[in-house]
Amino acid sequence: MLSRVVSLQRRPVGMPDLGDFQVTETELGEPGPGEALVANLCMSVDPYMRGRMVDRKSYVPPFAIGEALTGGAIGRVVQSNDPALAEGDHVESFFGWRDAFIAPAKQLNKLGELSAPASAYLGVLGMPGMTAYVGLLEVGALQEGDTVFVSGAAGAVGSAVGQIARIKGCPVIGSAGGAAKVAHLKDDLGFDHAFDYREGNISAHLKDAAPQGIDVYFDNVGGEHLQAAINHMRPNGRIPLCGMISQYNATAPVPGPNNLAMAIGLGLTLRGFIVSNFNHLRQDFLRDMTQWVNSGELSYRETTFDGIERAPEAFIGLFKGANTGKMIVNLNA
Amino acid sequence: MLSRVVSLQRRPVGMPDLGDFQVTETELGEPGPGEALVANLCMSVDPYMRGRMVDRKSYVPPFAIGEALTGGAIGRVVQSNDPALAEGDHVESFFGWRDAFIAPAKQLNKLGELSAPASAYLGVLGMPGMTAYVGLLEVGALQEGDTVFVSGAAGAVGSAVGQIARIKGCPVIGSAGGAAKVAHLKDDLGFDHAFDYREGNISAHLKDAAPQGIDVYFDNVGGEHLQAAINHMRPNGRIPLCGMISQYNATAPVPGPNNLAMAIGLGLTLRGFIVSNFNHLRQDFLRDMTQWVNSGELSYRETTFDGIERAPEAFIGLFKGANTGKMIVNLNA
Repeated sequence: MLSRVVSLQRRPVGMPDLGDFQVTETELGEPGPGEALVANLCMSVDPYMRGRMVDRKSYVPPFAIGEALTGGAIGRVVQSNDPALAEGDHVESFFGWRDAFIAPAKQLNKLGELSAPASAYLGVLGMPGMTAYVGLLEVGALQEGDTVFVSGAAGAVGSAVGQIARIKGCPVIGSAGGAAKVAHLKDDLGFDHAFDYREGNISAHLKDAAPQGIDVYFDNVGGEHLQAAINHMRPNGRIPLCGMISQYNATAPVPGPNNLAMAIGLGLTLRGFIVSNFNHLRQDFLRDMTQWVNSGELSYRETTFDGIERAPEAFIGLFKGANTGKMIVNLNA
Repeated sequence: MLSRVVSLQRRPVGMPDLGDFQVTETELGEPGPGEALVANLCMSVDPYMRGRMVDRKSYVPPFAIGEALTGGAIGRVVQSNDPALAEGDHVESFFGWRDAFIAPAKQLNKLGELSAPASAYLGVLGMPGMTAYVGLLEVGALQEGDTVFVSGAAGAVGSAVGQIARIKGCPVIGSAGGAAKVAHLKDDLGFDHAFDYREGNISAHLKDAAPQGIDVYFDNVGGEHLQAAINHMRPNGRIPLCGMISQYNATAPVPGPNNLAMAIGLGLTLRGFIVSNFNHLRQDFLRDMTQWVNSGELSYRETTFDGIERAPEAFIGLFKGANTGKMIVNLNA
């Protein structure tokens, strides 16, 4: 079986462009003992991958030039040489931007019976959904009556954050780029307030939406949003730091919020987190989220690009607001 | 009895100067029913007071022009018209920068038998000591084996932080301004490493002192120190935000750390706090700290200015590194 693989051709500087990527083909052999051959159905492109395209020390090593870029994928077993997996089983894996691959069975996460479309396991029932769940409930320590603000609210993580807050009975404010996304937050997802951060001043929007202040700010973007949120936090407020997409393409260090000293008097907690440190909450997450999705209390959208050769385009689109909800690359077309 | 009172003559802009302050005299009458006349023995000037000299919204209202500046003081009851207090009792109070005053007895905190000089109740056994204690142990959640870094380490709070860390068996690094303070930290207070932040690069000093990284950074200063510390934090590190003295005299907003995004991958927690929210730990603090002071495990220094008319000079000195340990204004000379 032939596999197509997407890798870096050169390291992006600032906003990535299509010429930074390449698609190559490779012939897969037969799975060896303990291995399986998997055909991917769909895969994920995520903002955090931008960080690994830079050659610097980080909590995960940078991508090498010519090496398959790594992201989550959902696939189906085509051929198995291990008793743990059978042909037709669905598996979650992290073997990169490729349409098929051979890997040790023990490095594949068998999903069991799917209770939603495969792509949902890359979004609301996968890493972004779990990021929202642990970030809001555990890192943000959501309490009854809290007012919640989430940036990047139309994205995969943000839209789940806002809906979980709503399900928990908390007033929720979201920011997103553009009128269509703002309407989606209010009309479809039940946000109490939503605003277009490209129009007017973020701090002024927050003053209108939360005159009494904010208890939890779920930060997906950093930059101006974080600074404006700090201005409007209530005493003992919590700020889960989940992403700083506004800065990922910066070519020089970006100054942090100029009002961080307010955190002292207000007793604010800013806490960065990565979801992989919260695996002890995985069963809680799957139980609650599956129930919310199946009952219709929590809905999700996807933006889909068809074909692995469009993965770079989908990835770059993340930084240009091209997605509403989870960005998916469909490999099953 | 005549009382001398220090107040603002005008609001300081940037670094305060002596002309911003005034000393006036007022004749005290006799204490009314339920009141006591107190002669202060010593009083405290603290960096946080700078914030209240600016006319802006904050967790405590700003000082008014001509109104006595407020700080902690230890005094002795001269005359009491309330059964709860007797002549000679020592009391802690917050009735401002004045050498004597009349106040309701119920607003005075009777200290009981002193087990240390009166001024210690403004420092190591008072608010700065408790700030160090709760900031390191509760907010910083100090754990066995943690490496601790504290800035402003020769100050009243910082020197207690470093010594508590040492008593708990944790390696401790301190920064201070000038060779004499650095020598004091290493030779007298048992810091494992200390450096002069005015000499060379803070980040380079930390790399030398903590090649394996820092678990708890107790931030008294903000600015460059905070940014450098973030660069050297270990995963799941904690940063109690206690003060940002480097910024208190700034006339324009000061950018925050440009590497805050590192908090995400490393799972760092930055938590601001004010000690008055931790009164539930006051008995623990007094028990432990009194024991450490009396056993000689924890020592403290004071820098003393004699006479209430020198209070403005002592206060300004806080921002110029004039103090080693707690800055005290002695009113008993």
